[in-house]
Amino acid sequence: MATQRIIDFLATRRPSGPCLVVDLDVVEENFNAFRKALPDSSIYYAVKANPAPEILRLLASLGSSFDCASVAEIEMALDAGATAPRISYGNTIKKERDVARAFELGVSLFAVDCVEEVEKVARAAPGARVFCRVLTNGEGAEWPLSRKFGCVPAMAIDVLARAEALGLKATGVSFHVGSQQTNVEAWDSAVADAAFVFDTLAERGIQLTLVNMGGGFPTRYLKDVPSAAEYGRAIFEALRRHFGNRIPETIIEPGRGMVGDAGVIKAEVVLVSKKSVSDENRWVFLDIGKFGGLAETMDEAIRYPIVTERDGDARSPCVLAGPTCDSADVLYEKTPYPLPVSLTVGDEILIEGTGAYTTTYSAVAFNGFEPLRAYVI
Amino acid sequence: MATQRIIDFLATRRPSGPCLVVDLDVVEENFNAFRKALPDSSIYYAVKANPAPEILRLLASLGSSFDCASVAEIEMALDAGATAPRISYGNTIKKERDVARAFELGVSLFAVDCVEEVEKVARAAPGARVFCRVLTNGEGAEWPLSRKFGCVPAMAIDVLARAEALGLKATGVSFHVGSQQTNVEAWDSAVADAAFVFDTLAERGIQLTLVNMGGGFPTRYLKDVPSAAEYGRAIFEALRRHFGNRIPETIIEPGRGMVGDAGVIKAEVVLVSKKSVSDENRWVFLDIGKFGGLAETMDEAIRYPIVTERDGDARSPCVLAGPTCDSADVLYEKTPYPLPVSLTVGDEILIEGTGAYTTTYSAVAFNGFEPLRAYVI
Repeated sequence: MATQRIIDFLATRRPSGPCLVVDLDVVEENFNAFRKALPDSSIYYAVKANPAPEILRLLASLGSSFDCASVAEIEMALDAGATAPRISYGNTIKKERDVARAFELGVSLFAVDCVEEVEKVARAAPGARVFCRVLTNGEGAEWPLSRKFGCVPAMAIDVLARAEALGLKATGVSFHVGSQQTNVEAWDSAVADAAFVFDTLAERGIQLTLVNMGGGFPTRYLKDVPSAAEYGRAIFEALRRHFGNRIPETIIEPGRGMVGDAGVIKAEVVLVSKKSVSDENRWVFLDIGKFGGLAETMDEAIRYPIVTERDGDARSPCVLAGPTCDSADVLYEKTPYPLPVSLTVGDEILIEGTGAYTTTYSAVAFNGFEPLRAYVI
Repeated sequence: MATQRIIDFLATRRPSGPCLVVDLDVVEENFNAFRKALPDSSIYYAVKANPAPEILRLLASLGSSFDCASVAEIEMALDAGATAPRISYGNTIKKERDVARAFELGVSLFAVDCVEEVEKVARAAPGARVFCRVLTNGEGAEWPLSRKFGCVPAMAIDVLARAEALGLKATGVSFHVGSQQTNVEAWDSAVADAAFVFDTLAERGIQLTLVNMGGGFPTRYLKDVPSAAEYGRAIFEALRRHFGNRIPETIIEPGRGMVGDAGVIKAEVVLVSKKSVSDENRWVFLDIGKFGGLAETMDEAIRYPIVTERDGDARSPCVLAGPTCDSADVLYEKTPYPLPVSLTVGDEILIEGTGAYTTTYSAVAFNGFEPLRAYVI
C-alpha cells in the first residue's frame, strides 16, 4: 500500500524522525469507489479519521459532505471549502454552547441519542434537523464498539417524537456497525431497526426521511476485506428488504475506509534485544508507539502491515514496542509479529494502512517526543 | 486533594473548558517528604510525569536531580536550572544520535538493559557511566508493568561486564517495581537481585556503586496508600538485609508520587442519559476523556476521585465516558462510578490526583479537541 509516490517522496525528501505520508490519489480513488458502490447515498467523510487540510480540500472539491465531531472540525471543513448544508454535527455528546456555535455557522443537521440532547438542540438550534442514533451490537468489527453511542430503537421513537414536539425536524435514524467492520451482513439488522423506527413514527404522523448508515467500512490491513462494491450491494439489499419500494435518503460516513490505506508511516528501528539468553522472542523497539500515533494497537486491536528492506530474509517472532518509558507502550506482544531475523538498529520500516486515526491520536508531548508529523502529497 | 489555592484559582479565574491546575506547594511538600524518608538517596524526579517548566524550576531549586526519557526532556531540565551532572538519561531505548546529543549537553549517566544499547553508548558517549535495568515482576502495582524494560539479573552481569570492556563505567543496577506500587515489600526482591549482580561482578573485579530504585511510589487516589516514610523504612531494611554494611549509593525516581496529588482537573458534565428506559446505570459524559488527558483510565487501571458540588446527595452507579466520537473513549464501565443522582448537564466537577501523566498524554487534536490546558500555581 506504499504507493510509488509515497516511496519516491521518502527517498527524495528523507524526512528525519517518524512521519506519516498520505497519497491524495488514493483518497480520490476511495471516494470514487464509494460513490460508485452507493450511487444513491451521500458521502459524509468522517473528519476525525484524518483532518489534514489537503484531504478536506480534495474531498470538498470532489463533492463530499462532512461528518464532524466538534466545532473545531466544522470550522476545518468550512475552511476547506465545504458549505454548511454539507456538514453534519455527528457527535451525540455536545455542549449546548457548541450546538449554538455550529448553528451560527449554518449547520442544521445534528445527531442525538437521548431526550436530554434533543432539549439542548431545541434551545440552541431551533428548527434544526436531528437524527437519532440507535445501538447496534458491533459484531464482526475489529475496533471495539461499546454501548457509548445510541439508544435502543424503542427509545429512539420517544427521542424523535420529543424533537418534533420541541419544534425540531425529526429527520431520521443513524447507526454504526463498528469500525473496521468486515462482515457485509452487519448492516442488515441495523437497517431493520431503522425501518421499525420509521414505521412506528409514521403511525404517529411523523415522516422520517433519512437513514445515516455511519461508517465501519474497513481498510485492508493484513487480511483481505470486502470491496466497497460488495458493501454497496449488501447495504442496498438490506434497504430493499426492510424498506421495500420506499427506500429513504441515505448517508454513509466513511473515515478509515476513505483514508486508511492512503497513508504510510515511516519509522526507525531503535533497538533489537532479548531479555535473557533463553528468550524465545526478540524485542524490537521503534521510534513510534502507542503514544506517538499508533493508539489503535490498544489491546492489539488493529494489526498493521509492516514492510522492511529485508523482507526476503527468514523471519522470527518479535515483540514490537514503542520508544517511551511507559510499560504500556507495547504494540504487539500477545500475538508476536514475525519480522526478518536480519532486522537491525537503524533500519527504516514502513507501517502501512496508517492514514486514519494516527496523527490526531498522537500524544502532544509524551516523554518529550513531538507529535507525529504528516506530509500529504 | 483540591487545595484551597486550587479552589480559589478556579473560583477567581473561571477558565473555560477542561483544565489541570497544579499546586506547587504540594509538590514541595512531596519533595520534602521523600527527602526526609530516604535521606541517603538522591531524588531524580521522573520528568515524564509532568514536565511543566514551573514544576521543573521548583524541583531544581530544591536540589532535585532529574530522570529524563528523551533529549527534549533533558533540555527542559537544563532550561529549568538543573546541571548536567544532576541528569540521568533513564530510557533504555535511545537512538545513538540522541545519546550523542545528550553527551554533548554534558549528561554522563545512561540506562541500558542489553549489550546492543551498551555498544551505542560506548560509541556515542565514550567513558560515560551506565546502569543496567533488571526485570521485576511488578506484583502489587496498579499500572501494568510489562517486560518491556530490563533484562534478567544473569544477563545484567554480562551487559555491565561488556560496558567495562568497551571503556564505559559500569556503575550499578536499576529496577522499577511498577507504577502506583502499594506494597512496601515490593522493593525487597529487586534489591536482592541488585545485590546478586553487585557480588558477581565484584568477583570479576568490577565494583558497582549505585542502586537506582526507580519510581513506583503511589499517589492517593480512592484508597489510602502507605506514606513516604513507610516506603523509606521498607527500602532501608531491604538494603540492610541484602547489602549488610556496604550500603551502596542509591537513587529514587518519583514521578506520580511527586506530582500526582498536586493536580486537579476541572471538567464539565456534557450529558447525562440512559440507553433504554430499563437501563440500570446512567451514562455521564464529561468534556474530558481518555484522549484528552485521562489515558491512565485504560483498562480502568487508575480510578480517580471525583468531587462534585452535589456530593451530599444520594448516589447511583454511572458509566463515565469522554466527549469524543470514539467508542473506546469510556473511562469506567466494568466498575461503574457512583455519582450523585442529582448530577446534571453543565455541572462542574473536580477530578483529583491528576497531576501526573495527564497533560503530555493528551492527544494533540483528536476529534478536533485541543490538548489539556494546565495552570501551575
